[in-house]
Amino acid sequence: MQTVSIGVIHSPFKDASGVPIQAVFAPQAQGEVEVFPEYRQGLQDLEGFERVWLIYWFDRQEGVRLRVRPFRDDRERGLFATRAPCRPNPIGISPVRLLRLEDGRLYVAGIDVLDGTPLLDIKPYCRQFDAFPESRSGWLETSENTRTRSDNRFAGP
Amino acid sequence: MQTVSIGVIHSPFKDASGVPIQAVFAPQAQGEVEVFPEYRQGLQDLEGFERVWLIYWFDRQEGVRLRVRPFRDDRERGLFATRAPCRPNPIGISPVRLLRLEDGRLYVAGIDVLDGTPLLDIKPYCRQFDAFPESRSGWLETSENTRTRSDNRFAGP
Repeated sequence: MQTVSIGVIHSPFKDASGVPIQAVFAPQAQGEVEVFPEYRQGLQDLEGFERVWLIYWFDRQEGVRLRVRPFRDDRERGLFATRAPCRPNPIGISPVRLLRLEDGRLYVAGIDVLDGTPLLDIKPYCRQFDAFPESRSGWLETSENTRTRSDNRFAGP
Repeated sequence: MQTVSIGVIHSPFKDASGVPIQAVFAPQAQGEVEVFPEYRQGLQDLEGFERVWLIYWFDRQEGVRLRVRPFRDDRERGLFATRAPCRPNPIGISPVRLLRLEDGRLYVAGIDVLDGTPLLDIKPYCRQFDAFPESRSGWLETSENTRTRSDNRFAGP
């Protein structure tokens, strides 16, 4: 189960501190997703989708923590009940808005990813499969923490 | 970028043919997600979430195809505009409904995954971050193909 990099995500965020916690908190933040030439044939027909899932590797994350204090809460929670990066498989998923596709580059908005992050996959966001606007969201429903940007809490092993 | 298996997905689907194409097409299909003991501490607080993302490895998929005829369409499309399994990184994501959590096992409904599939990650489904019910879905919007179960089209390299 060895992953390969199919591209690189370019974003305004150079440091793990100050990154939007989720795409939805930075609708204006723009980035570019560079797909390596050998994979570009697979991008056809993607432009019809308003959003795409970026699947990527948290390459600057070190170590795993099974209990974390998430950005949006003030209590410790089980890792798998959070989107924190310190995971056994440091894989992130972000539904970003696709602005345009040109020469193997996706111009996207609502990016919440560090600059230089290795891209593993792109999937279309399909409202028919992915949108559950009524889904109950556990601790997020009652948390009064309204932080929208990251800090350094997950730095180091 | 080496992945590790953190558990195994158990489902009624033993063969790549006949699996629901997406979780939403099999709301009644139930499965169990076994999380290995060393990771179970991370499951705390997950039960408050109505849905969870399962992130897994398509372990029986062989080969990559950059152009595919998706299950839900009758034309060839670029791979990244589809959810087909023959990807450079054969990683799948499924938003399944969490029925209950007991002894390190998630009992889930709406499963669209082959029995025995290695689990890479679990993330909470957060309607605040993940639900875009108005998002335009490219070719899916106009396809008249209404297939809901897989066949063997992606078998072999």
